Amino acid sequence: MRLVTVPLRKRSYAIKVGGGLLSRLGVECARLKLGHRCAVITDSNVRRHFAQVAMKSLAGSGFDPFLVSVPAGEKSKCLAVVEKCLDRLASHRLERKSFVIALGGGVVGDLAGFVAATFLRGIPFVQVPTTLLAQVDSSVGGKTGVNLQAGKNLVGAFYQPQLVLCDLGTLKTLPKREYVSGLAEIIKYGIICDAKLFAQLERDLPAILRRDPKVLSRIIARCCEIKAGVVGQDETEGGRRAILNFGHTIGHAIENSFGYGKLLHGEAISIGQVAAVKLSREILGLPSGEVERIEKLFVGAGLPVTFKLNAAQYGKLFAAMKLDKKVSGGDVKFVLAKKIGRVVWGQNVSDSQIRHVMGC
Amino acid sequence: MRLVTVPLRKRSYAIKVGGGLLSRLGVECARLKLGHRCAVITDSNVRRHFAQVAMKSLAGSGFDPFLVSVPAGEKSKCLAVVEKCLDRLASHRLERKSFVIALGGGVVGDLAGFVAATFLRGIPFVQVPTTLLAQVDSSVGGKTGVNLQAGKNLVGAFYQPQLVLCDLGTLKTLPKREYVSGLAEIIKYGIICDAKLFAQLERDLPAILRRDPKVLSRIIARCCEIKAGVVGQDETEGGRRAILNFGHTIGHAIENSFGYGKLLHGEAISIGQVAAVKLSREILGLPSGEVERIEKLFVGAGLPVTFKLNAAQYGKLFAAMKLDKKVSGGDVKFVLAKKIGRVVWGQNVSDSQIRHVMGC
Repeated sequence: MRLVTVPLRKRSYAIKVGGGLLSRLGVECARLKLGHRCAVITDSNVRRHFAQVAMKSLAGSGFDPFLVSVPAGEKSKCLAVVEKCLDRLASHRLERKSFVIALGGGVVGDLAGFVAATFLRGIPFVQVPTTLLAQVDSSVGGKTGVNLQAGKNLVGAFYQPQLVLCDLGTLKTLPKREYVSGLAEIIKYGIICDAKLFAQLERDLPAILRRDPKVLSRIIARCCEIKAGVVGQDETEGGRRAILNFGHTIGHAIENSFGYGKLLHGEAISIGQVAAVKLSREILGLPSGEVERIEKLFVGAGLPVTFKLNAAQYGKLFAAMKLDKKVSGGDVKFVLAKKIGRVVWGQNVSDSQIRHVMGC
Repeated sequence: MRLVTVPLRKRSYAIKVGGGLLSRLGVECARLKLGHRCAVITDSNVRRHFAQVAMKSLAGSGFDPFLVSVPAGEKSKCLAVVEKCLDRLASHRLERKSFVIALGGGVVGDLAGFVAATFLRGIPFVQVPTTLLAQVDSSVGGKTGVNLQAGKNLVGAFYQPQLVLCDLGTLKTLPKREYVSGLAEIIKYGIICDAKLFAQLERDLPAILRRDPKVLSRIIARCCEIKAGVVGQDETEGGRRAILNFGHTIGHAIENSFGYGKLLHGEAISIGQVAAVKLSREILGLPSGEVERIEKLFVGAGLPVTFKLNAAQYGKLFAAMKLDKKVSGGDVKFVLAKKIGRVVWGQNVSDSQIRHVMGC
């Protein structure tokens, strides 16, 4: 098992990465000295595979858990489902020392985290991410929240978990497309701050695609470490944390405008990252050889790198970008790469530059 | 104008108490160095009286405000109304530097505060409480939130405003019953930590009931100071902050079970405080003379002090108390008075003791 610590002083917490962690859930939670009652929030897919193991492990360590299952999919990330979960917590008489466990992918983690952040103005929670994307990204860093009709993640809270358990065993049941989608965030960490990781991904891609636990364990822990380091320096996204949004400005806008139900998050930010890389070549002089290496890695992983739009669709895309949380004074700011392993944030990019790189 | 500071290090803020502050709203907000766009959240009653002055003042200082009006009353304190407000903020393209102004009583403050706490995971907000209750209680201390079907304030966030402006002029339009309801919280501050304030309230009651601005200004500022001091020591209700809940355990349960639409908050906690005072006599030996003085002050202010229940209603009351956020390990903990100006928290009280004091 690998251990990563997210350094947030009084709110510091551990991320544990390894095999068989789900069956140790009860033992791991017992160390946190919380109350006995807990809600395990999961979705209809994950429930089938892992709910029983989780509940058994919790009960075996003396906890009194109950299951809250929401429909699988992005549609559950809304305030109506938040309210249903909160009602269940209230009807089970959860108290301030009780806790919430998020068992599932990014949707469940974001939703359950926000439920934990707001029930009784905040009760403890534990993340058990079961997708690659959630393990390397959404379960680390304390961003919780749901969508509004106007856009993704427009409502939420910065709220840190007490513990994150990444069980590599849960990745085995992931559909291939969803697994590959998670690789988009992993490649991102290489681009934004670790050229060595990027090279390792190029080299080990076949093993990664085979889901080799040994290779995966090292890579997932390294990604968590990078994210933990960035979050530790900038918990609430005032500055440096922005680099984690590399590829997300265009990626989110694509998801928002055209992607729901069509593109997975990783697919959208794969397109967004490749666009950002091309913008980086134009604006910061990122060498063409590196642009090619990056594009090749995304393609090799099986991720989409282009997304054709007509004129009307571009209008929709720009409008969506301007609603992004990172917008300030109406300006859309980009994270761009100087070279693999080094990015800068707060870059101005014109609509026509975006149109140009998206079109080519 | 009187100035009280809430000492919360980086999140410290000022409470200003005085006449004519509403027309200075724009000037006061300009000092905070926030963005230009802001949402003024108010209700259908307050809107009639004060929205125009507020909007004019903001526009006059170069802000770009828009009004969000919710139906007056406790029913607006729900997640569905939160979502409507959030949708409005999104459609007006509020950004992270934009801000929310809560213009109204406790319902508006709690609702708008929660909206500000969760939109884009938190944007700045300013409280302009227009009721006596909100000025001395809910606008200070950062508790925001809304109700679930299962109970009051079960969902929310601890989230501090950037500024609180208490304009005494807004109290003139308050219906008598609502004004008097606010006195219940003021009397509470005397009981929990200021015997001198309590004596002043006894002495100045006629002037207070006349809404004499000079007397009121001193009293409101003192109440804010007491609350600010307690909140500064214990922002998230881990210990001492519990004393602010004097009278609220029974009070909230009454509101929850029987009171909506019948009793105002101040009326419910007036009943709750008098019950707590009687429990204090039984359990901590609070002198009978002080019990009488306290009861007399509530009655003199025009507040109810008893609430008769039948056997079935007691069952409902106890069930509601056990859902209180302050419950731990299933035990309902009370704040009780040793003498006027001194209380202790975490006291165990049996159902039969409650039955006894409520019945007599």
